[in-house]
Amino acid sequence: MAVGELSFPCMPPIAGVEIGVTGAAIKSPGRDDMLIFALPDGASVAGVFTQSAFCAAPVTLCREHLEKASPRLLLINSGNANACTGERGRQEALQLCRSLAQHYALSESEVLPFSTGVIGEHLPVDKMQAALPLLVESTKEDAWDRAARAIMTTDTRPKGATTTLELAGRTVTINGISKGSGMINPNMATMLGFIATDAAIDQAVLQQLVCEVAGLSFNRITIDGDTSTNDACMLMASGKAGNTRITSVDSQDYAALKAAIADVCVQLAQMIVADGEGATKFVTIDVQGGANHEECLKVAYAVAHSPLIKTALFASDPNWGRIVAAIGYAGVSDLNASKVRVLLNDVLIVEQGGRAASYTEAQGQQVMDGERITITIDLGRGECQELLWTTDLSYEYVRINADYRT
Amino acid sequence: MAVGELSFPCMPPIAGVEIGVTGAAIKSPGRDDMLIFALPDGASVAGVFTQSAFCAAPVTLCREHLEKASPRLLLINSGNANACTGERGRQEALQLCRSLAQHYALSESEVLPFSTGVIGEHLPVDKMQAALPLLVESTKEDAWDRAARAIMTTDTRPKGATTTLELAGRTVTINGISKGSGMINPNMATMLGFIATDAAIDQAVLQQLVCEVAGLSFNRITIDGDTSTNDACMLMASGKAGNTRITSVDSQDYAALKAAIADVCVQLAQMIVADGEGATKFVTIDVQGGANHEECLKVAYAVAHSPLIKTALFASDPNWGRIVAAIGYAGVSDLNASKVRVLLNDVLIVEQGGRAASYTEAQGQQVMDGERITITIDLGRGECQELLWTTDLSYEYVRINADYRT
Repeated sequence: MAVGELSFPCMPPIAGVEIGVTGAAIKSPGRDDMLIFALPDGASVAGVFTQSAFCAAPVTLCREHLEKASPRLLLINSGNANACTGERGRQEALQLCRSLAQHYALSESEVLPFSTGVIGEHLPVDKMQAALPLLVESTKEDAWDRAARAIMTTDTRPKGATTTLELAGRTVTINGISKGSGMINPNMATMLGFIATDAAIDQAVLQQLVCEVAGLSFNRITIDGDTSTNDACMLMASGKAGNTRITSVDSQDYAALKAAIADVCVQLAQMIVADGEGATKFVTIDVQGGANHEECLKVAYAVAHSPLIKTALFASDPNWGRIVAAIGYAGVSDLNASKVRVLLNDVLIVEQGGRAASYTEAQGQQVMDGERITITIDLGRGECQELLWTTDLSYEYVRINADYRT
Repeated sequence: MAVGELSFPCMPPIAGVEIGVTGAAIKSPGRDDMLIFALPDGASVAGVFTQSAFCAAPVTLCREHLEKASPRLLLINSGNANACTGERGRQEALQLCRSLAQHYALSESEVLPFSTGVIGEHLPVDKMQAALPLLVESTKEDAWDRAARAIMTTDTRPKGATTTLELAGRTVTINGISKGSGMINPNMATMLGFIATDAAIDQAVLQQLVCEVAGLSFNRITIDGDTSTNDACMLMASGKAGNTRITSVDSQDYAALKAAIADVCVQLAQMIVADGEGATKFVTIDVQGGANHEECLKVAYAVAHSPLIKTALFASDPNWGRIVAAIGYAGVSDLNASKVRVLLNDVLIVEQGGRAASYTEAQGQQVMDGERITITIDLGRGECQELLWTTDLSYEYVRINADYRT
């Protein structure tokens, strides 16, 4: 199940970013499940990673390698997350990095490993080693569609977004792909995003950019509140666009590039939500009028995580009492309930501590019958706003997650 | 659906605590839905209430009346929560307090009102007013069973617990009843607990006791993480047992009484979980080895609220990867994953960052096939421990909450 239609966009090459894809039968034969990105000398790479204390071996290695060297290669597999695999998992990931590096006469620290798939099983290292030469041979700039498919696990469709912008007369291109469907799939370790641009930009500036952009996109979606051991979002910049190198977060070029990359990332993040497990609704939660951003997010997450609201959304039930209850327990101190307003799309449903006088069930029902619903909550105490995107909670969600291993 | 069998205990009278019960057809005719507790002069009453910013009118009035006077009457109705009803809801609750008080020649401040049921509808005040004389006439000490049934909403069974203890040669009796089934029922405003004892105890001491005991019982259960606008737990002490009045929290008698009341409250709280919406499992989450209580609770709630773990429990699936993932994202700073141990009942499933070497799926399956499951998590970094009780997430939960208004 998934919300709406999705066609994969036509994604142009990114100058300097080569992609290799092949199948190693990691979980099952007959599909692509390994992928590399090869970057030119001088490229910048930055990333954000899961905050999980049980983060997977590849995440630990990514962090270490990013401290030691400028990455030239990203090695990705689906089908197995290499998570909760202890010291052996770490050694196996390192061994694969080393082998790939040798093909390019690079050091293992210049390779970043990523894995997604089943938790708690060891990688089929021999099969993966055997696939490395094929990966290297297959590299070309024009393979984004195949790359998006290779990283899928329980995703029902590949996810990609692309855009361009002008920086001082030079065209800069941005491509992104992501995977994820449920913050953790059944027992999958889940969200990955790979975004590449040909812009020239310093690594430290790029790191700041990826943090800011993830905060506006991948960190603003939630399906079930669960966070994976393997989540990572990487931003690669090949520097081949010929733009004046961006060296400061205070420049106009930085702001323009950030806006374009944010656009790509928000699209990718929303695609993950729309492909959420058992999702029948795409829900935007727009909390306005907060005294600060933290309290807006508290309310947004309380609403997004409430199983009662999520089941009401599934039932297309304009159950405003549940929304009000979630706002009430979200933990905003000294919230004046009588100032809070709640809207479903543009229908006012709650004001002055109760049901809006103008509200009719028929209005609410009409909104809820749609596939895309915006719940707007005005806290009436300030100027801050936060957006979050989520899904409903359906029988299908329970079925997918209850049946997965039976 | 509910876990296990439950027979209502034989509950003795509590000297000085009279109970009146009748039906006012608040939501539907033919059942008891109004209830009063009448207390003697000199009784102590203490309570804890929902922290919701959208707390219902009766909760606001309870807090105000407790500041003004010593309560002599508790007036309770099911079928309508009088929540999100604005100023009119407040006036209606106040009017009912005033009318009941007149029957006893008391002031309105000596009456505490409680409502549970549907959110956002106004009380049928005329029907409720008409029922007050019947309530007053029917009062007697021996009506706990009927009282437990009168406060039910979507509960599938009445919930009661009783115990006695000796305080310096005097027998003290404690009775308690509760209602709740899902932290918020469909759009019900949910948990209520009424505990009475004949012990003599100062009000300030009793208030401390109810806070401590609620922290060990009603605040340690979660079904769906939703908190109601109407939650309240009241502790009444008639002072008729003849014990030496308890005037300090440092006394042995206080400790003994607290242990007995905690026993009753834990039983009542666990009954709410076992009667949770769609529940097929009763799950104890026991987090040990924490550096402090806060981090133990963080981990316990992360596990208890994870839809992925809850669906795995429903499927009787020993899916340790999901438990590990939830521990990982619980937000314990500097958690050393390699020191964490996880057990299902007495089966060790996780140690040293991965699946325990001794673990077999068959062992895990045997535990998960049972109706009562304990997930023990040893964080390996201190001496603190916290317990939480919860349920699984079933198709039936989604059905109940999605179908309720359709």
